[in-house]
Amino acid sequence: MKEERYIKYCIIVAGGSGLRMGVELPKQFIELRGKPVLMHTMEKFYHYDVNIQLIVALPKNQQEVWGLLCTKHSFTIPHKVADGGITRFHSVKNALKQAGKTGLIAVHDGVRPLVSVGTIKRCFDMAEVCGTAVPTIPMNDSVREVKGEKSRVMDRSTLKIVQTPQVFKADLIRKAYLSAYLPEFTDDASVVEYIGEPITLVEGNVENVKLTYPSDIIIAEALLL
Amino acid sequence: MKEERYIKYCIIVAGGSGLRMGVELPKQFIELRGKPVLMHTMEKFYHYDVNIQLIVALPKNQQEVWGLLCTKHSFTIPHKVADGGITRFHSVKNALKQAGKTGLIAVHDGVRPLVSVGTIKRCFDMAEVCGTAVPTIPMNDSVREVKGEKSRVMDRSTLKIVQTPQVFKADLIRKAYLSAYLPEFTDDASVVEYIGEPITLVEGNVENVKLTYPSDIIIAEALLL
Repeated sequence: MKEERYIKYCIIVAGGSGLRMGVELPKQFIELRGKPVLMHTMEKFYHYDVNIQLIVALPKNQQEVWGLLCTKHSFTIPHKVADGGITRFHSVKNALKQAGKTGLIAVHDGVRPLVSVGTIKRCFDMAEVCGTAVPTIPMNDSVREVKGEKSRVMDRSTLKIVQTPQVFKADLIRKAYLSAYLPEFTDDASVVEYIGEPITLVEGNVENVKLTYPSDIIIAEALLL
Repeated sequence: MKEERYIKYCIIVAGGSGLRMGVELPKQFIELRGKPVLMHTMEKFYHYDVNIQLIVALPKNQQEVWGLLCTKHSFTIPHKVADGGITRFHSVKNALKQAGKTGLIAVHDGVRPLVSVGTIKRCFDMAEVCGTAVPTIPMNDSVREVKGEKSRVMDRSTLKIVQTPQVFKADLIRKAYLSAYLPEFTDDASVVEYIGEPITLVEGNVENVKLTYPSDIIIAEALLL
């Protein structure tokens, strides 16, 4: 029997307040086909590997509701809960305390329930070899860079849209998150890159959008199997 | 009664071959709720202004099928057909021959049926004042710029996703399309910018995606009213 070389963790960041959705309910709790977004997301990782250690970073004031939702939906996928911080960076930093010192640590957006098991696998497989793995998809739209009143078209053939999960060897992400917070840290790759580590890109899946707008909920309902 | 100052044209570029969709049928002919994508798109412009002059740029070998589809679906929105060229640039250049010498000329992707009438109106209104108008939406995903084996995170707060319709005063777009073709011309704004004209940005609508992948068809069916 092949020995499992790396323990796998996934930090699921669910800090949304629902403001851009135009609703009071945090968007990770909006129901898709009768079940909160966050549960759909967690199920994808559980389907990838039933032994994965899930750590959900949730704002303190949402944790009681989350517990009630788990009871209501008989949601039994094992997971720990970490306190969400004031930014994504602070949430991940908190959640890292509950992950191991070795192994592979993924960070995934709670509101990306359409990630494919294939994308998750590609990321973990690559990170095992290269230390880092970030899923991307091609940029199919034209992009403009705006500076003050002016803007200019970018060469989109050199641009990639970055998704999650972003997977790292534990020591790398732990070292990176010792850095002081900078507003430029828009994802985990940017934090790890900041300490000088090269980021390896792998293929994501085009459906893996971050639910942001009300129309994204309609989209996710249509695409969820 | 207020005099209409500008005649409005819209060139609808429908040159897709359907390759990325994994189907033989050109994607502009795929049916959404029982009607080809291209008809949905044209209806949006007709709803904005029943007097708009529509010019559809279609590959020569698709024009007969298009005629049959119009008969089959009793599609009666008035429009001209122009021959599609080997690139988007050449299709627009051909279609411009059928538009007027004055007025406002929009160029829109045939496979963007989810454009809102509000977006169309904002573009025409702005182009009437500024000469150019291009709809954009914020970049909500992290973006990486790839150079060879390396990549780096971009400052996404300065990036905008560009949509269509892109609207221009007739003399500006006509002058721009006298330029020799360059591969950098990914949209009409990049052509007009090339002759030194500043591009004015207006707000697009987030649903206004360019149908590219099979999942986009499911998305469009869910979002179309």
